[in-house]
Amino acid sequence: MSSTFTGLSLRLSIFGQSHSEAIGMTLDGLPAGIAVDTEKLQAFLNRRAPGRNSWSTPRREEDRPEFLSGLKDGKTCGAPITAIIRNTNTRSKDYSQLKVLPRPGHADYTAEVKFNGCQDFAGGGHFSGRLTAPMCIAGGILLQELERRGITVDARIKAIAGITDLSAFTESVKDKPFPVSDDEKGRLMQQAIEQAREEGDSVGGIVECRITGVKAGIGSPIFDGLENQIARIVFAVPAVKGIEFGAGFTSAAMRGSENNDAFCLREGKIETETNHAGGILGGISDGMPILFRAAFKPTPSIAKAQKSVNLNTMQQEELTVTGRHDPCIVPRAVPVMEAAAAIAIFDMIQGEPTWN
Amino acid sequence: MSSTFTGLSLRLSIFGQSHSEAIGMTLDGLPAGIAVDTEKLQAFLNRRAPGRNSWSTPRREEDRPEFLSGLKDGKTCGAPITAIIRNTNTRSKDYSQLKVLPRPGHADYTAEVKFNGCQDFAGGGHFSGRLTAPMCIAGGILLQELERRGITVDARIKAIAGITDLSAFTESVKDKPFPVSDDEKGRLMQQAIEQAREEGDSVGGIVECRITGVKAGIGSPIFDGLENQIARIVFAVPAVKGIEFGAGFTSAAMRGSENNDAFCLREGKIETETNHAGGILGGISDGMPILFRAAFKPTPSIAKAQKSVNLNTMQQEELTVTGRHDPCIVPRAVPVMEAAAAIAIFDMIQGEPTWN
Amino acid sequence: MSSTFTGLSLRLSIFGQSHSEAIGMTLDGLPAGIAVDTEKLQAFLNRRAPGRNSWSTPRREEDRPEFLSGLKDGKTCGAPITAIIRNTNTRSKDYSQLKVLPRPGHADYTAEVKFNGCQDFAGGGHFSGRLTAPMCIAGGILLQELERRGITVDARIKAIAGITDLSAFTESVKDKPFPVSDDEKGRLMQQAIEQAREEGDSVGGIVECRITGVKAGIGSPIFDGLENQIARIVFAVPAVKGIEFGAGFTSAAMRGSENNDAFCLREGKIETETNHAGGILGGISDGMPILFRAAFKPTPSIAKAQKSVNLNTMQQEELTVTGRHDPCIVPRAVPVMEAAAAIAIFDMIQGEPTWN
Amino acid sequence: MSSTFTGLSLRLSIFGQSHSEAIGMTLDGLPAGIAVDTEKLQAFLNRRAPGRNSWSTPRREEDRPEFLSGLKDGKTCGAPITAIIRNTNTRSKDYSQLKVLPRPGHADYTAEVKFNGCQDFAGGGHFSGRLTAPMCIAGGILLQELERRGITVDARIKAIAGITDLSAFTESVKDKPFPVSDDEKGRLMQQAIEQAREEGDSVGGIVECRITGVKAGIGSPIFDGLENQIARIVFAVPAVKGIEFGAGFTSAAMRGSENNDAFCLREGKIETETNHAGGILGGISDGMPILFRAAFKPTPSIAKAQKSVNLNTMQQEELTVTGRHDPCIVPRAVPVMEAAAAIAIFDMIQGEPTWN
Repeated sequence: MSSTFTGLSLRLSIFGQSHSEAIGMTLDGLPAGIAVDTEKLQAFLNRRAPGRNSWSTPRREEDRPEFLSGLKDGKTCGAPITAIIRNTNTRSKDYSQLKVLPRPGHADYTAEVKFNGCQDFAGGGHFSGRLTAPMCIAGGILLQELERRGITVDARIKAIAGITDLSAFTESVKDKPFPVSDDEKGRLMQQAIEQAREEGDSVGGIVECRITGVKAGIGSPIFDGLENQIARIVFAVPAVKGIEFGAGFTSAAMRGSENNDAFCLREGKIETETNHAGGILGGISDGMPILFRAAFKPTPSIAKAQKSVNLNTMQQEELTVTGRHDPCIVPRAVPVMEAAAAIAIFDMIQGEPTWN
Repeated sequence: MSSTFTGLSLRLSIFGQSHSEAIGMTLDGLPAGIAVDTEKLQAFLNRRAPGRNSWSTPRREEDRPEFLSGLKDGKTCGAPITAIIRNTNTRSKDYSQLKVLPRPGHADYTAEVKFNGCQDFAGGGHFSGRLTAPMCIAGGILLQELERRGITVDARIKAIAGITDLSAFTESVKDKPFPVSDDEKGRLMQQAIEQAREEGDSVGGIVECRITGVKAGIGSPIFDGLENQIARIVFAVPAVKGIEFGAGFTSAAMRGSENNDAFCLREGKIETETNHAGGILGGISDGMPILFRAAFKPTPSIAKAQKSVNLNTMQQEELTVTGRHDPCIVPRAVPVMEAAAAIAIFDMIQGEPTWN
Repeated sequence: MSSTFTGLSLRLSIFGQSHSEAIGMTLDGLPAGIAVDTEKLQAFLNRRAPGRNSWSTPRREEDRPEFLSGLKDGKTCGAPITAIIRNTNTRSKDYSQLKVLPRPGHADYTAEVKFNGCQDFAGGGHFSGRLTAPMCIAGGILLQELERRGITVDARIKAIAGITDLSAFTESVKDKPFPVSDDEKGRLMQQAIEQAREEGDSVGGIVECRITGVKAGIGSPIFDGLENQIARIVFAVPAVKGIEFGAGFTSAAMRGSENNDAFCLREGKIETETNHAGGILGGISDGMPILFRAAFKPTPSIAKAQKSVNLNTMQQEELTVTGRHDPCIVPRAVPVMEAAAAIAIFDMIQGEPTWN
Repeated sequence: MSSTFTGLSLRLSIFGQSHSEAIGMTLDGLPAGIAVDTEKLQAFLNRRAPGRNSWSTPRREEDRPEFLSGLKDGKTCGAPITAIIRNTNTRSKDYSQLKVLPRPGHADYTAEVKFNGCQDFAGGGHFSGRLTAPMCIAGGILLQELERRGITVDARIKAIAGITDLSAFTESVKDKPFPVSDDEKGRLMQQAIEQAREEGDSVGGIVECRITGVKAGIGSPIFDGLENQIARIVFAVPAVKGIEFGAGFTSAAMRGSENNDAFCLREGKIETETNHAGGILGGISDGMPILFRAAFKPTPSIAKAQKSVNLNTMQQEELTVTGRHDPCIVPRAVPVMEAAAAIAIFDMIQGEPTWN
């Protein structure tokens, strides 16, 4: 088992449980001299933080990272960067029932089996969505450097509860309170979330991510292609159940003559007329925006009564999850997808063979 | 760049170009004493081989692996297994135009950029679908051992050209000439392929894969979960543009109350009533069948005229791809998905911490 | 660059600089349910701590780890273990001269070049011997579990300042204040250290480490043998400049008939009469004690005036290192070698292929 | 278990058994466009080949690699390079006795245990020194490119049978038939080899390797330093039982004031007056020649009768190894050390973070 990402040039270790002393990350492999703007990073982390909106859990917790190492005078010093976030209200509640009566859709049962009854169930333990905060610290640092190098990463809500934003993804919407391109659709999505919340239920959705400024030639065929690496990191985010690049599953229903992106010249530069490939051919960037979408299942924590099995008595039982939970984690997943994309892209660009 | 898979317990190196002396693979990390039935392996490889049907390219090439090392008396001896397949009709044709006039949807352009004009373009080089043959050698060996341990891996055609097999995936159909569950839909799919072929076009599709017999507790949260590892290998297969697990993208439109799989007892064993999770919760197997689907874009090689840019003159030009190509690679991708799944699953089960 | 160890089954990330907020480690890959006795761990860490003896630096710093994650009720819970040690008296001094006038034998110059002037020089930064404390946290945890499984790891001082303990290494001496087998030689070594200290100089030495209880069959030929993995970790310790296994460099002067260890039977068990192989044949354990020795160069920090070059003026200058430093780090390196050995051995045993 | 090297930027897979169809290697991670001079490579391989001298085994086998992939028009094409060497006279002899009566100093016993009786014993199987030929193919290719970039790698015989060449290692001697600097000492060494041969015995020795032209700043502290990486690869060579850098074990007996290398200016460039550090400070190159020495135990195959234990009867037995064997493999190990060094250095330089 491993919560350590071994990339082409980066190593990222994510640690902590929802209610342990702290959660955090170590990012190893950054060159020295990269500036880290902690205020900008905080603004990025705030986009992921809970409790900002009616549709997210009202629990308000300051996700302010404390840097333990790796920085000097606001720049990387070449040593691994470690940052932690203290968990403030831990151990407040009794989670022992989860050990006995696993919640459907959660990792309670699989964790119980894998960890032989030693799992830290409190708040979801190491499986908690809270562990995306350290991923956002790493990604937030890398996003700053990518931006300096002309690479932008933007995600948006593509769909929630089956309501899909069909508008083109040409402009960044990440600074909107509800990051969709089509605000009308956004309102419908918010209504769907609100309705699910009122009914003690939850909804899923799709996040779309776009990376621009990556020159052609980054990546590889077979195992270390852009798709492999991005997918590997995106699936580290809880609740993700699918990923597609460019036209993705839609391309499976297309003809080759429709799906192939014709090469063309734009201002003397080779581009493609369409971008069904999502900027990737043979695992390698073609210079067009890299596009992917991740499918998020609905939050498994719902107020409605559900069926489970008592692991002690081995009898069917009814379970009601108490506490307040996000009826939809998709809006908060938008910066997480940007972080995941940043980690994958930075790692691959930096990992290209060099001779100096 | 790397065509070497570094798993939890396996190392798999895939080498060769479409027209190099040989293609092949080295599989490292298998314990000694695992029987390899080469006839059974050949039967598996034949499912991937071209030229068996009207819808695949008539080029007939014997994909018979030669084992160079790692086996002794029909069993693994503990040393890495290397097997190669000679490329018989190599260098027969002039591929220099691909260097100048890249084919839309192919890796010609990205390879030219990445490899500074040194790419081996013949037959697609290292990007060729032919490189799935070595993956099938590795996967075929592992499938035999998985089967001995009660784990079965079956794939089927889920959709082609937008025609979807909606029947439940409960029985293996891999030995059918056209591996669908709903043969009526299968006939429509074959018609769509045939029609595309006649029109000098191609179609894409979806392959579904099901793994049964994996006990609960295999996998991990964050980076080394079942989804991460399977995705990482599946995207090594050319033309794959998306992957989803269980309900996947469909779950994104569902309510939590619909999508959550209720726990239940079946013959004293904990199972789930539905399997929207695709057998995976928190990156860890829950004992239900592991289910995933991969989206294949339509074969980019089509006879229709297409637009490209001449990299020498930097002028728009029209391109016609000659030669005969599969109008649909999805049927041949079915065993490839089984191989990919076998590699991921075997690696993860064997890589579980042990103390003996 | 990487301070992350990617083993066969473990991932170990070591972070921190001598004067950063904290130093620490994340140990990923331990199964759940392993007991961690923090008092016993503290006793182990105290063996490494400075200031305990006349020959070590009088600076007294409590190396008490704070566990941030990975433990629950005194046992591993399956999530990565992160522990940190706060650096108490940081930034007290001006280290800017090291940037300009690098100390001979230290990493000041190479760090300046590699990290483009952004290196955190204070107290040696990430290059400090202080970073062996996190390694001892990881190793100390693993040593406890190894002991439960009948594997013991003992190190001793083999030589200091050319004075060599020639007695057989059959009993543990690690609980002695000065861990040698031959106390008479130990007194001479301590005199040599004291004399060096008085002269503002330092001395080096050799630590020997012995691992018993590892059954035959652990390890591999070629890249993942016991020697490769132990060496890879031992060289992570600052000041180590050589490693040898069994008879090591001595075997290079021996005849085959002398060096070969004859197989024999002892109480019905296959052993070898001698152990020149250090318990390793073909990279694999043979059941005899695993033996290695690491050579430590003398502490580069000495009070004597030394020659250096001013990197600003590019002029030769004389340098005097102030402050108090260990005249010999070898005694404190004894538990560090045990920690390094424990990491290597635990990783390899746990990483053996399993099927359950 | 793994015969796959996962470096910072290279992947090297070594496969084959002494008597399998072929031995070979796959080298993955080289950029496209690197010229491979196969004649020059052959000359390099010939330095390792057996049968060239009176002191090596008279068995004459052409080690001529066949390239299966990765090259096009004499240059790397970006795909992995695979080359194999056919084993010509395989399976000629009965090796079944090794399974029952393991040879002292060989891996027969440990292989039998690890591989559950399925080991391919013929000629030493995967443990054979013959497997250094594939390592030399990889290293030989990289040496050519290193040379183009101004980096030279030279090894020499430092000692054999306790006879040590004490002369400074300033000039390359690798083209000598017996590569020592002090030819008088060389004659004594050859006499010692010859004498051992006549007595049915063998001798060990030390190979020294020097790498020049590596600029300061390559490498890292902790786990990915030059020492760690070089050691990890050097211990992949059978019979190596120790490695030391710079003054190595000698530095353990020195004072800091002696061992520290004073910085000085030579032609405006920062160098050190001495090179006890072997060109490495804090795991990072300092611009001076990188120096290491590897200790080789005497060849375990000797004609003299030896004691072993019959694994079937569990009785002590006498064993006589028949056939002709190198009484000393040290001369043939000289190019192998150059290959190992080339792999480590190339991997690390290429693996430095890049942004282009």
